[in-house]
Amino acid sequence: MIGEQFLQLPGPTPVPDRVMRAMSKAMVNHRGPEFKQILEEVVEGIKKTYQTKQNVLIYPASGTGALEAAVVNFISPGDRVLAISIGVFGDRFAKIAAEFGAEVEKLDFEWGTAADPQIIRKKLHQDKNKEIKAVLITHNETSTGAFNDIKTIRKEIMDHPALFIVDAVSSLAALDLQMDEWALDVVVSGSQKAFMIPPGLSFLAFNERALEIHKKNSNRKYYWDVTAGLQYLEKGQNPYTPAISLYYGLQESLNMMLGEGLDNIIARHKRYRDIVRAGIKEMGLDLLAADDVASTALTSVVAPKDIGANKIRKYLQEEFNIVLAGGQQKLNDIIFRVGHLGYVRDLDLLSVLAALEIALIKLGYKLELGSGVKAAQRFLLDKSE
Amino acid sequence: MIGEQFLQLPGPTPVPDRVMRAMSKAMVNHRGPEFKQILEEVVEGIKKTYQTKQNVLIYPASGTGALEAAVVNFISPGDRVLAISIGVFGDRFAKIAAEFGAEVEKLDFEWGTAADPQIIRKKLHQDKNKEIKAVLITHNETSTGAFNDIKTIRKEIMDHPALFIVDAVSSLAALDLQMDEWALDVVVSGSQKAFMIPPGLSFLAFNERALEIHKKNSNRKYYWDVTAGLQYLEKGQNPYTPAISLYYGLQESLNMMLGEGLDNIIARHKRYRDIVRAGIKEMGLDLLAADDVASTALTSVVAPKDIGANKIRKYLQEEFNIVLAGGQQKLNDIIFRVGHLGYVRDLDLLSVLAALEIALIKLGYKLELGSGVKAAQRFLLDKSE
Repeated sequence: MIGEQFLQLPGPTPVPDRVMRAMSKAMVNHRGPEFKQILEEVVEGIKKTYQTKQNVLIYPASGTGALEAAVVNFISPGDRVLAISIGVFGDRFAKIAAEFGAEVEKLDFEWGTAADPQIIRKKLHQDKNKEIKAVLITHNETSTGAFNDIKTIRKEIMDHPALFIVDAVSSLAALDLQMDEWALDVVVSGSQKAFMIPPGLSFLAFNERALEIHKKNSNRKYYWDVTAGLQYLEKGQNPYTPAISLYYGLQESLNMMLGEGLDNIIARHKRYRDIVRAGIKEMGLDLLAADDVASTALTSVVAPKDIGANKIRKYLQEEFNIVLAGGQQKLNDIIFRVGHLGYVRDLDLLSVLAALEIALIKLGYKLELGSGVKAAQRFLLDKSE
Repeated sequence: MIGEQFLQLPGPTPVPDRVMRAMSKAMVNHRGPEFKQILEEVVEGIKKTYQTKQNVLIYPASGTGALEAAVVNFISPGDRVLAISIGVFGDRFAKIAAEFGAEVEKLDFEWGTAADPQIIRKKLHQDKNKEIKAVLITHNETSTGAFNDIKTIRKEIMDHPALFIVDAVSSLAALDLQMDEWALDVVVSGSQKAFMIPPGLSFLAFNERALEIHKKNSNRKYYWDVTAGLQYLEKGQNPYTPAISLYYGLQESLNMMLGEGLDNIIARHKRYRDIVRAGIKEMGLDLLAADDVASTALTSVVAPKDIGANKIRKYLQEEFNIVLAGGQQKLNDIIFRVGHLGYVRDLDLLSVLAALEIALIKLGYKLELGSGVKAAQRFLLDKSE
């Protein structure tokens, strides 16, 4: 029996049964009072996960859509933009800004590392005339499994007026993010990650400072226009037809999340990370990201060179129906990525480690069978004492 | 007992149980072979409903998103565009084109009527230097319940090179639309209409002529870029995360639709229209659209002046949980709109007519109770003989 696909991806993530059932409710009028009530409830819930009292809009779109929305609403053609990148998604954000006319300066850090706050500080310090209008940064870099220390970076450049725009698509609720406390101006997220619902919704949060800048924005926009979004939100509506079934799911998943408590969810994701890292280290494999910058959403493992990452992934898929993500672009076949984001149990990770050991041995890697699993068990035992 | 909301809207439309259940399947990797197979199957299915062999892309977005995609991919800033409007959605399409830099000339026809092919022909004939780059037109105008005779209009202006871009969001599969046979260049549609799935997916079909023009397009775009869309489609993927659960639903609804047969679906929608119009006429109420331009997706009914449309809608919602759409903008309180699009039965329409009679009498309108229902029954009886 092959069973359900065992999805250890950094998105889409498994959807809880409760959420699935909620999504099966019949359609309602998206201009009526029932939808208004749902919309208001989920917006309040999302604000809690963002730890914000600012504006939140929901788009019927992937996370990439809300990244585009952040660009076309808050960056004008000709604006100088500093785009900090530690991987594929940082590159993508920079590319979107460039496509929409920004003069983008890329600030790249080695893949697998995090951005250095002091280098960013220096960069902005050099901008004497305050020509840089926005700083783009990825919170959790899904392509490498490293995360940026948004809080420190923001603090270091508070004296510069550039908008601080954060891609938190894969981090929100998995990593602590305090939009208001840390003075983040614009924060983007998506549904198919820690929110535990299928892909198709994305979120854009922005403060009053960003809204003022938006009012003078000269980029062309219609679908993503936050002015229209806010006007309709006032009425409890979306400017165009919302993805109703996903709202049902979101309402239920937010109930689950707020019931569990944001701190507990974040602690749980930290635990996932530590379980996986304890196991992998014991197996003698390298981790792409160092401990202090290691993502709580996924772990990138460097495969033994003579085997390659894709052979391992193939074996796990064929023998155990476990789906791990591969490396992207220059990391292809170098790493595999174990997602531990959203609706995941400790148990799932123990079984993934167990299967991985079998795969490694089968493919010729020297390893004491059970040693990685045991290290992970030990971590859990110690933690519970 | 109040029961489920009885949704007689022109979108979102009721979702069949089979489709709901299909949508509850577990997530799969959107870069894996399972998703590839689903994507290829649904693209083939959509092509059948468009009656085309051309390119079809699926966006995680509302219909409005795919309208924006049609504009930013096939119209460049500065392009002269003729936008034909017979209501709110024609106006919206024109507004999107203007927002993205087109020099839009509006050609308006009275709300409730259809566009006159001869006037359009004349307009394009006057464009001796072929400066008009695109003609925008709505197939079914959801705000009024009139539809444009796309086939005839297209034929009349075949000697002009302007791209012919059709908003078929609410018409596809409810009205006959033969993309290839009629030489339509770009056709937009959406999921929450005759496709019977929840909102959140939209479709963009375009021929090779449009693709050639796209290659020289100078509008800024990322999320909607059809070049990226086609590249990923080749691999059986979407450029960014697709709305997986809605694809499951679409796969199932296309199975239902192709099983029923496109001709039968179109005939069924014609029958819905005729049932409703027979009943409404017998009640002595006016219909906004004349018989020869009356939409098969919805029927706009002019409410008795001294009652107003919104009182009738309110009564039906409160007493019967029937949700009808109101009039938009200048038609507010003048008309109400009975949707008969997608997953609807003859029975549903008979009961809506029966409830409407009760509402009208209750609100002081003179009417022989049962007369409208009887006319609709008579229509069905005659049809079955």
